[in-house]
Amino acid sequence: MKVDLNADMGESFGDWKMGDDAALLEVVTSANVACGAHAGDWDVMAATMERAAERGVGIGAHPGFPDLQGFGRRRMNMPPESIGNLIIWQFGAARGMAASLGAEVRHFKLHGALANMASEDATLARAAYEAALRVDPNVILLVLAGTAQEAVARELGARWAGEIFADRGYRDDATLVPRGELGAMVHDPDEAAQRVVRFVRAGAIFSNEGKEIPAACDSICLHGDGPEALAIAKAVRGALEADGVDLAPMAGHR
Amino acid sequence: MKVDLNADMGESFGDWKMGDDAALLEVVTSANVACGAHAGDWDVMAATMERAAERGVGIGAHPGFPDLQGFGRRRMNMPPESIGNLIIWQFGAARGMAASLGAEVRHFKLHGALANMASEDATLARAAYEAALRVDPNVILLVLAGTAQEAVARELGARWAGEIFADRGYRDDATLVPRGELGAMVHDPDEAAQRVVRFVRAGAIFSNEGKEIPAACDSICLHGDGPEALAIAKAVRGALEADGVDLAPMAGHR
Amino acid sequence: MKVDLNADMGESFGDWKMGDDAALLEVVTSANVACGAHAGDWDVMAATMERAAERGVGIGAHPGFPDLQGFGRRRMNMPPESIGNLIIWQFGAARGMAASLGAEVRHFKLHGALANMASEDATLARAAYEAALRVDPNVILLVLAGTAQEAVARELGARWAGEIFADRGYRDDATLVPRGELGAMVHDPDEAAQRVVRFVRAGAIFSNEGKEIPAACDSICLHGDGPEALAIAKAVRGALEADGVDLAPMAGHR
Amino acid sequence: MKVDLNADMGESFGDWKMGDDAALLEVVTSANVACGAHAGDWDVMAATMERAAERGVGIGAHPGFPDLQGFGRRRMNMPPESIGNLIIWQFGAARGMAASLGAEVRHFKLHGALANMASEDATLARAAYEAALRVDPNVILLVLAGTAQEAVARELGARWAGEIFADRGYRDDATLVPRGELGAMVHDPDEAAQRVVRFVRAGAIFSNEGKEIPAACDSICLHGDGPEALAIAKAVRGALEADGVDLAPMAGHR
Repeated sequence: MKVDLNADMGESFGDWKMGDDAALLEVVTSANVACGAHAGDWDVMAATMERAAERGVGIGAHPGFPDLQGFGRRRMNMPPESIGNLIIWQFGAARGMAASLGAEVRHFKLHGALANMASEDATLARAAYEAALRVDPNVILLVLAGTAQEAVARELGARWAGEIFADRGYRDDATLVPRGELGAMVHDPDEAAQRVVRFVRAGAIFSNEGKEIPAACDSICLHGDGPEALAIAKAVRGALEADGVDLAPMAGHR
Repeated sequence: MKVDLNADMGESFGDWKMGDDAALLEVVTSANVACGAHAGDWDVMAATMERAAERGVGIGAHPGFPDLQGFGRRRMNMPPESIGNLIIWQFGAARGMAASLGAEVRHFKLHGALANMASEDATLARAAYEAALRVDPNVILLVLAGTAQEAVARELGARWAGEIFADRGYRDDATLVPRGELGAMVHDPDEAAQRVVRFVRAGAIFSNEGKEIPAACDSICLHGDGPEALAIAKAVRGALEADGVDLAPMAGHR
Repeated sequence: MKVDLNADMGESFGDWKMGDDAALLEVVTSANVACGAHAGDWDVMAATMERAAERGVGIGAHPGFPDLQGFGRRRMNMPPESIGNLIIWQFGAARGMAASLGAEVRHFKLHGALANMASEDATLARAAYEAALRVDPNVILLVLAGTAQEAVARELGARWAGEIFADRGYRDDATLVPRGELGAMVHDPDEAAQRVVRFVRAGAIFSNEGKEIPAACDSICLHGDGPEALAIAKAVRGALEADGVDLAPMAGHR
Repeated sequence: MKVDLNADMGESFGDWKMGDDAALLEVVTSANVACGAHAGDWDVMAATMERAAERGVGIGAHPGFPDLQGFGRRRMNMPPESIGNLIIWQFGAARGMAASLGAEVRHFKLHGALANMASEDATLARAAYEAALRVDPNVILLVLAGTAQEAVARELGARWAGEIFADRGYRDDATLVPRGELGAMVHDPDEAAQRVVRFVRAGAIFSNEGKEIPAACDSICLHGDGPEALAIAKAVRGALEADGVDLAPMAGHR
């Protein structure tokens, strides 16, 4: 039994710092590195990838909308072809940076509003993933398990890995309980850790109502913003290790 | 005898158009494509590279300072390491875009103030070229013949090609007559064309005072902004063809 | 009988030119000047306002979404309070520039996607207009006649002026025939001119199906992108003058 | 005896936080608010000015180069007229925001590389200050005491206030000891506080070598980045109060 732990990183910009990448890099096995459109810049990307490579953490490209002020979290009305070009541009930048460090971009994960839209809209997900695959047909698409992202990755015959959340509640239809609603967030590190072990062992997520929903639990999404998030990340890692689960960068499957 | 004709392209941005790329692509053999920092965006880059590839025009990355409003023409005080990262980011984006189209980035040319600084400052030129070579050790560095750019490309043992101008006057020390001074610009298409033929045949540039300065005349820099520039471009191509010079994308030499 | 002719201007950015502002400034009586978020920059804004002021053309602020690459034409999902702040920031910049030239910003018109959204969504229109009025309670809101923009301007007790289009077809519910559909655009300058005279004289727009819809025809929106648009602009001005209509910067009413 | 305490604020951007504005606002009497070019955005500016106004802290515009990634700290080669327009645009935005809150922009301070350049280059300082005065002839120019900034403010007959640093060492020619050199920084809060009291009482700065240099010590520049900076800020305020110095927003003089 093998699982990957991923987190978004390289989200600082210029003099502005975000997240505790150094601490997270001691916990995760894959890093989703921002590409300069919604966060990150050339210097941040270089430093982040260098540190990830040194620790054997798998490097991923994490493209988003070109909206620094909104951190890529605002939906933008762009035609699919433009979204494809936008993704190629960012993915290419990430690959160039990795290559310059003797490393490689192994996986690809959409950010923010772009990810949300691609979870709901297969046309958009297809435009995004086809674009990425035109740059590298072997890249692993890290998809939100059970969404249009997964459906499209399968349909395209791409390598993919399924992602689940350590700290979010699920509804019976496998979607997340919206932030702000009761049961949206898991705050207790031990609870988060036990959930993840249960999900990974079962090969399924369990909704807040108790429904078991089979899901590809290939990679656990962790966060590093604030002490609680980091405590959850460490607890999840500790519990998986204690349970004998092997932690390694995602391998992907077709 | 073989020569390349290059021009800057893909310098539109969003709804703003610049230059007559369609016309220039019928004349040149290499296109220096803007990478989104000083000009160009993902959509412009995709369209420009696609058209270039269709016509067999060699594709180059043309990175510049991150300064859209100044079109990369203002000197910015960035540390060499940052300049290296900035270049890798842009070069990577260009390579990703080319790869997505089944094409490749063959050459690399610095833009605007970054190019001017690298002509004068070997440290900066080295930072820039080493960065590019870390991404692709086989890329052809298109250098301003006779400047620190050429000296550094030779020193690094890189593949390189020398660039000369069809429409600019030279001084006895091989530098350009500054714009605004007498003899800075060649306005007559026939004169420009005859100069280029003479330079290419001699393997040398001739200063306005008549001094012959040996130079690697591998590629002629043309422009497409305005009817005069396009007329010069066409005249140069016509005269070289009439003289039996073979026109082809630069091959580079070490 | 008095009418204003308005057009968007100052939409160049850095080295990129857009529109023929010099020609349009000979035709219009009000200029909607871009504020640097979706188009325009400090230099373009200064030059545009200076020329407008010299010709007695009324100056307006024309704020849009912060999206240069999309020219402010892509809807962005921003909270109303943020939209208010964004507008104050742009309106303030425009007022500062006008003040520095001894001129003033007389009117205010939303741009692109922001304008479209405010035509449909009274909450957003209110956020936008209240923000503008907090900066200058006497500014004239130039609203799309018959939309939520007009309703909100009336409700706020603001000074406002109604805008109609010279070159667009209307539907029976007073909305524009969408671009791409039959009857969306009026291409013939004489036809456009006669329509405008008819609308202004009637104090109403007429739908493509012939329905008369009372409307505040205070200002006619003209364009300067391309020879056809400029021909329409001139024809509209000529026809109004021939008909004895007085052309002057909008005065607004409450 | 009356002194102002100023600090740069509103330097967050989107989701990126910078500095501890809330804590600083309890210490200072004037806030230099970033205007969106090198830092700050419309939302940050609104929140910062609102809090400042509530506490009776004087609001200033703090314009910089349009270079978010470099935080306005990289020198850019812009013509003086462009710098003037850039400043008007930012100053206008700040004034609009303040007006929308029922507040006003009382002072004006250049940021980063722009400030450094204007300390050395009277032509640039003149372009910058004349631009600001064209927007508001009564604004108080907060100048680095003893530099070209002060000379130009005097020459223009503007209202101005002189600024000195609590935590930086001075050389015999009144310039700052460059960062990195011995004696550049004062780290001890008590030492900083005693220096400031001495400077204010003497109406002079004292160089590290002990030279007394008469200077307009109207406003003390404080910082809020990190616990040391905040401790210095509080110590300076405490020592001035203990010494019977009146703390109030700068009044300026001509």
